[in-house]
Amino acid sequence: MRPSSSPSDGLFGGILARGPVAAAVADDAWLRAMLDTEAALAAASAGAGVIPAAAGAAIVAACADLAPDPTDLGRAAAAHATPIVPLVAAIRAVVPAPARPHVHTGATSQDVLDTAAMLVAGRALAALLSDVDGAAAAAAGLARTHRDTPMVGRTLLQQAVPTTFGLTAAGWLAGLDAAAGELRAYRPTAQLGGAAGTLAGLGPAGPAVLADFADRLGLAAPELPWHTERSRVGRLAGVLGTTAGALGKPARDVTLLAQNEVGEVEEGAAGGSSAMPHKQNPVAAVSTLAATAQAPGLVATLLASAVQEHQRGAGSWQAEWRPLRELLVTVGAGASWLRTCLDGLVVHADVMRANLDRAAVSAERGAIDPVGSAGHFVDRALATHSARRTDA
Amino acid sequence: MRPSSSPSDGLFGGILARGPVAAAVADDAWLRAMLDTEAALAAASAGAGVIPAAAGAAIVAACADLAPDPTDLGRAAAAHATPIVPLVAAIRAVVPAPARPHVHTGATSQDVLDTAAMLVAGRALAALLSDVDGAAAAAAGLARTHRDTPMVGRTLLQQAVPTTFGLTAAGWLAGLDAAAGELRAYRPTAQLGGAAGTLAGLGPAGPAVLADFADRLGLAAPELPWHTERSRVGRLAGVLGTTAGALGKPARDVTLLAQNEVGEVEEGAAGGSSAMPHKQNPVAAVSTLAATAQAPGLVATLLASAVQEHQRGAGSWQAEWRPLRELLVTVGAGASWLRTCLDGLVVHADVMRANLDRAAVSAERGAIDPVGSAGHFVDRALATHSARRTDA
Amino acid sequence: MRPSSSPSDGLFGGILARGPVAAAVADDAWLRAMLDTEAALAAASAGAGVIPAAAGAAIVAACADLAPDPTDLGRAAAAHATPIVPLVAAIRAVVPAPARPHVHTGATSQDVLDTAAMLVAGRALAALLSDVDGAAAAAAGLARTHRDTPMVGRTLLQQAVPTTFGLTAAGWLAGLDAAAGELRAYRPTAQLGGAAGTLAGLGPAGPAVLADFADRLGLAAPELPWHTERSRVGRLAGVLGTTAGALGKPARDVTLLAQNEVGEVEEGAAGGSSAMPHKQNPVAAVSTLAATAQAPGLVATLLASAVQEHQRGAGSWQAEWRPLRELLVTVGAGASWLRTCLDGLVVHADVMRANLDRAAVSAERGAIDPVGSAGHFVDRALATHSARRTDA
Amino acid sequence: MRPSSSPSDGLFGGILARGPVAAAVADDAWLRAMLDTEAALAAASAGAGVIPAAAGAAIVAACADLAPDPTDLGRAAAAHATPIVPLVAAIRAVVPAPARPHVHTGATSQDVLDTAAMLVAGRALAALLSDVDGAAAAAAGLARTHRDTPMVGRTLLQQAVPTTFGLTAAGWLAGLDAAAGELRAYRPTAQLGGAAGTLAGLGPAGPAVLADFADRLGLAAPELPWHTERSRVGRLAGVLGTTAGALGKPARDVTLLAQNEVGEVEEGAAGGSSAMPHKQNPVAAVSTLAATAQAPGLVATLLASAVQEHQRGAGSWQAEWRPLRELLVTVGAGASWLRTCLDGLVVHADVMRANLDRAAVSAERGAIDPVGSAGHFVDRALATHSARRTDA
Repeated sequence: MRPSSSPSDGLFGGILARGPVAAAVADDAWLRAMLDTEAALAAASAGAGVIPAAAGAAIVAACADLAPDPTDLGRAAAAHATPIVPLVAAIRAVVPAPARPHVHTGATSQDVLDTAAMLVAGRALAALLSDVDGAAAAAAGLARTHRDTPMVGRTLLQQAVPTTFGLTAAGWLAGLDAAAGELRAYRPTAQLGGAAGTLAGLGPAGPAVLADFADRLGLAAPELPWHTERSRVGRLAGVLGTTAGALGKPARDVTLLAQNEVGEVEEGAAGGSSAMPHKQNPVAAVSTLAATAQAPGLVATLLASAVQEHQRGAGSWQAEWRPLRELLVTVGAGASWLRTCLDGLVVHADVMRANLDRAAVSAERGAIDPVGSAGHFVDRALATHSARRTDA
Repeated sequence: MRPSSSPSDGLFGGILARGPVAAAVADDAWLRAMLDTEAALAAASAGAGVIPAAAGAAIVAACADLAPDPTDLGRAAAAHATPIVPLVAAIRAVVPAPARPHVHTGATSQDVLDTAAMLVAGRALAALLSDVDGAAAAAAGLARTHRDTPMVGRTLLQQAVPTTFGLTAAGWLAGLDAAAGELRAYRPTAQLGGAAGTLAGLGPAGPAVLADFADRLGLAAPELPWHTERSRVGRLAGVLGTTAGALGKPARDVTLLAQNEVGEVEEGAAGGSSAMPHKQNPVAAVSTLAATAQAPGLVATLLASAVQEHQRGAGSWQAEWRPLRELLVTVGAGASWLRTCLDGLVVHADVMRANLDRAAVSAERGAIDPVGSAGHFVDRALATHSARRTDA
Repeated sequence: MRPSSSPSDGLFGGILARGPVAAAVADDAWLRAMLDTEAALAAASAGAGVIPAAAGAAIVAACADLAPDPTDLGRAAAAHATPIVPLVAAIRAVVPAPARPHVHTGATSQDVLDTAAMLVAGRALAALLSDVDGAAAAAAGLARTHRDTPMVGRTLLQQAVPTTFGLTAAGWLAGLDAAAGELRAYRPTAQLGGAAGTLAGLGPAGPAVLADFADRLGLAAPELPWHTERSRVGRLAGVLGTTAGALGKPARDVTLLAQNEVGEVEEGAAGGSSAMPHKQNPVAAVSTLAATAQAPGLVATLLASAVQEHQRGAGSWQAEWRPLRELLVTVGAGASWLRTCLDGLVVHADVMRANLDRAAVSAERGAIDPVGSAGHFVDRALATHSARRTDA
Repeated sequence: MRPSSSPSDGLFGGILARGPVAAAVADDAWLRAMLDTEAALAAASAGAGVIPAAAGAAIVAACADLAPDPTDLGRAAAAHATPIVPLVAAIRAVVPAPARPHVHTGATSQDVLDTAAMLVAGRALAALLSDVDGAAAAAAGLARTHRDTPMVGRTLLQQAVPTTFGLTAAGWLAGLDAAAGELRAYRPTAQLGGAAGTLAGLGPAGPAVLADFADRLGLAAPELPWHTERSRVGRLAGVLGTTAGALGKPARDVTLLAQNEVGEVEEGAAGGSSAMPHKQNPVAAVSTLAATAQAPGLVATLLASAVQEHQRGAGSWQAEWRPLRELLVTVGAGASWLRTCLDGLVVHADVMRANLDRAAVSAERGAIDPVGSAGHFVDRALATHSARRTDA
C-alpha cells in the first residue's frame, strides 16, 4: 500500500487535516473497511449455508491479507463509477478457484461501499470524540479555575455588563458536551440489499445473513436496505455540522479576547509570521475557524444528495463520497486545533479585572450580585460534564 | 392585526408555503409567542417575589390583550436591530404606571426572541408532523396494498432486477418514519439569561425563575443560558434538513415513475399546463421537489451562524431569524405537497407487470424468489410504523 | 391589490428587507412584470401578424389595467404549480371574446415567469445599485478625508504594522466598486420559447416575435430559448453573492473598530438595547452582517437548481423562485444598511493615533515611510471610483 | 518531491478527480507556483534596486531548483497556520549568506499564497477549458448532425410537444459556450502588499515592484492589495459554479434519455455493475452529476469566507484554501466526464422518431411546422460557437 494515502499529508494537510480523524478516513482505512465488509458477508453467508463453508473461509482469509494499491484501484474504478468492481476482481484473483463465484454473493457495490463508509465513519467519530472530549475537558478546567473570575460581558461586540470567565468557558463546555453527546449517540448501520434491495441473491436466508453481517462488523442492522433512504447520512451530516459550530464558537472568542486591545487570553504556543517575527498569532484558534467554516457547505451537499432515484441513485449517491470524507476530516481538524488552543490557553485574570474596572458598564438593573447566577450555571455545566464523562 | 401576515399569502405562497406550518410561523404567531414569553416572565418573576404580584398580573393581562401591528413594530425594530425593544415599549404603554418598570425585568431582547422562536418552532413542528405522518400513512397504505406487486427495480436509472412496489413504498415509509421520529424527539428549550447570561437582574431567584418560566411555556429549561451556544438551533436545522430529504425522495420517484414512457403511477389530481391543456403534470411531486430543494442552503446558513461572538452575537445571531422561519415553511410545504401526492397516487400494477415482463432483466444471480425478501422488509417497515404511531 | 405585498412589511421586514429592493420584488411588482410580459407578447405577435391587431391592442389594454389580488392568484396557482395559468385566465376574462384565444399565444408559463423574473431582477438591480453606489460614495469620502490618517494595521486580529484609515476605506471602496461594476454589467434577458423551446406556436415569425418582444421590454434577446440553460440565473446569483461579500467586509470592520476597547469608529445613529439603555450598538453594521450572511446559502440553492430536466424542469426550475427573490432582498437590505452605516460613520482619528502609539508594533522591516504606498493606493482607488461613476 | 501529490490519485481519485485539472492543482503545482512567486518578487525587487542584483539572481536560481517535500512543509506549516513560513526558511537555507536577508523582502505570507493560488487557478482554468471546449465541440457535433432529428419534447418529465434532438444539443452547447466564455474572461491577479497592504517594506518603489512582479508572472496587477477584498475569489467561485450547472444539465438529460424505457441515447462506453454483468450504466453521465453536485456547497463556503477581518483575516482567509482547490478539481472532473460522455454518445434517431409517433402529443397550437424554429435556433447556437472558437 502506498504511504501517502492520508488527507493529513501534503502541503495543506498539516493545517487542514490535523488530528487523528484523517488517518481514520485515509485510503487504506477505506480499503480495510471494504475488505472487512466483503469478509463479513462471506462469513455470514457461509454461516447461513448460502455459500460453502470452505469458500467463506477462503474469502475471509483473502480479505485479511489483501492490500491493493488505492491509486491502481481508483483508476480501474473509473470504468464502473465504483471502486468495488475492481476490488471484487482483486479478491477473486487471489482466492482458490472454487471460492471465486462466491465472492460478493448477493451483494451490490453500494452494499459494500455504504457499509464501509459506516465503518469508516464509526472509527472516525471515535477519533473525533477523543479530541472533542479533550477540548471539553480543557473548557471544564477553565470553567472550574475561573468560576469566579470577573470579566466584562460583551454583546454585539460592545461591553455590556459583568460576567465571569468561568461562565464564558462553561458556555463553551455546554456546546462541546452537547456535540459529544450527539456524536456518541450516532449508531452506524450496515447496508445489505443486493441489486435492488430485495436480497434476492441470498434466498430466504437474506434477513438472517443481514443480521449476522451487521453483527460481525459491530454495526446496527437496518430494518430494510437503505440504498436510497439516506436519513442516516443526513443525520450524521447534521451532527457533524452542529459539532463544527460548537468548535468554532470558542475559537472565535479566543481570537477576540486575544486581540492586543483586549488582551484577556493568549495561546500558549502562538505562531510566528513570515513578515513580523515579533508577532504572536492565535494559530490554533484561527485554524479551528478555518476548518469548521468548511462544514456548512459540506452538510448542504450531503443533504442535497438525499433525493436519490428509484432503487439506487444516478449521481446523487456517488455525490456523497467526497463530502462525507471531507466533513469528517475538517471537523476532526477543528477539534484537534481547538483542543490544542484550549489546553494551552493562558488566561489573564488581572487584565479581565482591569478591563472590567475601566469599562463604562454598571451592573445590570436590579442586580444584587453583579455576576448574578454565573457561579450556579458554571456548577451545573460542570456537573453535567462529569455525569456525561461517567456515562461514556 | 393585519390580515396578510402569513407566508402562505401572496403570489407564490400557495405553492411554496402550502400547508399548516405557514400559519404557525406567521407574524401574528411570532407576536403571540413573544407576548406569551413576556407574560410568562412576569408571572414567574412575580411568583418568585422578584416583582410585585400586582405588576405581574397586570403584565400578564396586558400581554393577553395586545395585538400590535407587525409592520409598525417591524419598522420601529430597525432602530435597534430587534423587534423586542418596541414590543416592550408597547407593553409598557398599556400597563398601569406602577407595573411599567417591571415589564421585561431581568431579560434581554434575545431571551424573548429566542424563547419565542422556540415556541414558534414547537408549534410549527407539530403542524409539520401532522403532514409528515399523513404522508407516512399514505406510504404505509401503498406498501400494504402493493406488498406483492412486482415491478422492475431501477439502479443508476437503468432497469436492474425485479422488486416490488411495496418495497419501494416501504422505503419511502422508512424515511418518513425516521424523519418523524427525529421531529418528535426535538424538544424546544426556553432562553433566559439577561444581558450577559448571568441572570443578574433577577438576583438569587434567577435559576428558580428560569425553571418556572420554561415550565409555564411548556418548554425545556436549559442548564445555562445559551445565547451564543447554538447547538439547539443547529440540531433543529439538521432534523429539518433530513426531513426534507425524506420528503424529496418519494417525490423524485413519483416524477420518474409517472413519465409517459414508464407510466407506472400518476397523480390523482395532476395539474394543467398554460400551453397544453391535454397535459397532466405531477404538480404535487414537482412542488415537493421545489420546496425541499430549499432546505440544504438554509441549513448551511443556520449552521454557519453558530459561531457567535462573546456573550451575544454581532450579526451572527440576527442571521438566524430568516432561515429558521424559511426552513420551517419550506419543509412544511414539502410535507403538505407530498401528503397530497401520496394520498392521491394512482398505481398501475398492470403497467408495472408489463414493464417488468418487457424488461431485459433476469432475476438476481442465486435468487430463488425473484423478489427475495421484499415482502419481509415491507412487513418490518409496517410493523415499525405501527409501533411508532402507537408511541406518538 | 392588497397593500401588504412587500417583503419589507412585517415583523422582521424593517431589519431584513430594508431599502428599495424589497418594493422592486414585491408581489405587485411581479404581477406588473408578468402583465407587461403578456402585453409585450401580444404587441409583438400582432406586429408580426401572428395574431389580429385588434386582439393585440385589446390584450395590451387589458394588461395595463389589470391588478389581480396576489393571494387569490397564488391560491389558484397551486393547482398548476405556476401562477401563470390563473393569470392568463384573468386576462382572458376581461378581454373581448374575439381576443380571448389570442392571449398568451405561442408562449408557455415559463416564458412569462422567466421574463418577468428578469424584469423584476433588472429593476431590483437598479435599486440595489443605488445603495451600493451610495455606500461606495461614502467609502470614497472616508478614504479621501482620511488618506493620511495613521492607524495600526491588524492581521489575524493582532496588531501588526502601521497603515492608514484611508487605505482601509479604499479597500472597502475597491470591493464595492468591483461589485457595482459586475451588477451594472449584468444584462437581463427575455425568455420566449413556447412549450418545448421551438416557438412552433408562432410559426415562422417566431424569431422575429422574440426579438421584438425582448426589445419592447428593454431586455436582451437570447440566441435561443433558455428554459433549461440556466447560466443567466447562475451568473446573477454569483454577482449577488460577490456583492454580499463586498458589503459584509466593511460591516465586519466597523463592528471590530467600534469595540469599546478599540474605539476607533462609531456609528452615527447607534441603537439602544432593551436591557441596557446606556449601550450603543452598531446596529447598521450588525444588520448588514445578518443580511449578507444569507447570500451564500441562497446562491448555492440557485446553482444547485441549474441541473434541469429535458425541455423544462420538474421541480428544479420551480426551486429558483424563492431564492432568487430572497437573494435580491437580502443583498438589497445589506446595501441599504451599509450605506447608512458608512454615511454616518464617526471616525476617531485621535484614538487611531493613540492606539498606534501604544501598540507594540514597529514599522515594517525596510520601511522608509511607515505607511509605505498607502496614499498612492488610496489615490488609485479614488481615481478608479471617479472613472466608474462617470461611465455609469 | 513525493509522487502522490495529485487529487487524482487514491481510491476515489479516478472518478472524482478525473481529468487534467487535478494535476494543475496538485501539491507540486502549488509549490512550483509559490517558488515562482518568490522568484518573481526577488527579480522585480532587484530590478527596482530594492535588493542587490546578486541577491535577486541567487534567489531566482534557488527557487528554480528547489523541490521541497510537500508533506514535510505541510507539517512545519502547522505551527504558523501557513506553509509560506517554512518555504521561506527552505529558500533561505539554500541561498548564499548575503542573499538570505533579501528573500521574501517586503512580502507577507498571504502575498505569496494568494499569488500562487492565482497562478494555480489560471493553469487549472486552462486545463478545465480544454475539457469544456471539448464537451462543447461534441455538443456542437450532435446539434449539427441531428439538426432535424425529431423527438418528443418533455416538460416536468411529461411528454409535451415535438422538438428536435438538434435543439436539445444546441441548448447544451449554449450553456457550455456561456461557461467557456466566462472562464476565458477570468483574469487572475497578483497579490503584493506586505504585512498590512501598504508595501512599506519596499519603500517608494513598491508600486513599481508590484507592477513588474505581476508582469513577470503573467498576472494582472491590482490597483491596490486585496488581502481582505475578496471579490476576485468570489467571481472565480461564481464562474465555476455556473460552469458546474452547464456541465450537469446535459448529464442529467443523458441519464434520462438513456433510461431503458426511453432508449433514445446510450453511452459509447457504458460501465458494468458488480452484481449485474449484463447491465450498462451511463457511467460518464452519472460521474458528471456526482462531480458537479459538489460545486454549490463549495461556492457557498468561498462566498461566506469573503467577510474578512481588518488588514488580513483570522480564519476567513485560511478557509478559502480547501474549497478553492476542491472546486477546481470537481468542476474539472465534471468537464472531463461530460466530454467523454458526449464524445461517445450514441443517438438512436429511430427510437426518437418511434417515441414521438407513439406519444399522445399533438403539435403546439398554431404550429405550422411541428418543430417550429428549432432549426433556426440550432443554426444560431452553432454560429455563435464557431465565432467563439475563432476568438479564443
